[in-house]
Amino acid sequence: MPQSMSKSSIPVFETILNALSANLDKAEAYSTVKKIDPSVLLVMRLAQDMFALTRQVQVACDQAKNGSARLAGIEPPKFEDTETTIAQLKERIAKTVAFLKGLDAKTIDASADREITFPLGQGKGQMRGDDYLNHFVLPNFYFHAAAAYAILRHAGVDIGKRDFLGGIPIKRI
Amino acid sequence: MPQSMSKSSIPVFETILNALSANLDKAEAYSTVKKIDPSVLLVMRLAQDMFALTRQVQVACDQAKNGSARLAGIEPPKFEDTETTIAQLKERIAKTVAFLKGLDAKTIDASADREITFPLGQGKGQMRGDDYLNHFVLPNFYFHAAAAYAILRHAGVDIGKRDFLGGIPIKRI
Repeated sequence: MPQSMSKSSIPVFETILNALSANLDKAEAYSTVKKIDPSVLLVMRLAQDMFALTRQVQVACDQAKNGSARLAGIEPPKFEDTETTIAQLKERIAKTVAFLKGLDAKTIDASADREITFPLGQGKGQMRGDDYLNHFVLPNFYFHAAAAYAILRHAGVDIGKRDFLGGIPIKRI
Repeated sequence: MPQSMSKSSIPVFETILNALSANLDKAEAYSTVKKIDPSVLLVMRLAQDMFALTRQVQVACDQAKNGSARLAGIEPPKFEDTETTIAQLKERIAKTVAFLKGLDAKTIDASADREITFPLGQGKGQMRGDDYLNHFVLPNFYFHAAAAYAILRHAGVDIGKRDFLGGIPIKRI
């Protein structure tokens, strides 16, 4: 059986997003222990011209949602960027994962050589389905998910790389 | 044509690693302009218990090299971790990309349902080939490549997300 477009997208996004949600729980617990308003974390960033934590989480969700929707041949729903608390960011992640679960795997599997057209800056981008997943959706998704993780680490939250990887199908022997 | 194991691994690693190499050039140029010894950058880290830049680059290379070699059914060569300059890190990346180019794409394509066994901590891990690529090699690779990028951004190097993505096969319309 070859690698499939649906297996290299949907469960990957779900695993990393669920891991991110668990890391936000640890961030909330850390803020409580330190007696710091958790909203301080949400506006943290690694550089002045990089997104803050809230935006990193929103964009990671959107890369997963929009990329998967386009591979499934449907118009992605728009989620408003209104989150101001960790609980709301976790809700955004849950809503994204629920959306991913509803997509048709067979249509995604048939998308490898379909041309995908998508909004890009002020214009549009076009890529073959497999290139779009391998060279655009996945690296963009990981970029923002890893940035969110790095902000939490930088802020002192006690998480490690396994917390980034999440619950992966591995057998330890 | 379905998604293939070789297309979702080799050119992805090459693109992101070549982009990382170009970002190291920009880091070197930045150090020169600021009249700072570039070795200051190489020991920077985002948290006390995260890897410094040098190690992030080495491990990103190794995830690509070791993961691809195992999917190609061969024992990965060991690269010594002796780099102390940006030029040497760029050499490590070039050596890794050259190694990837020499792997047999057909063997990698046939690896999706082969069990892969690999060193993990003090023991070993075992995963199906496609799971190994989707849930272990790619997220680990992106984790370290994105961390290297984030250290450069945090240090003030003038790069953006496009510099992370590298030369991708996109058509702007």
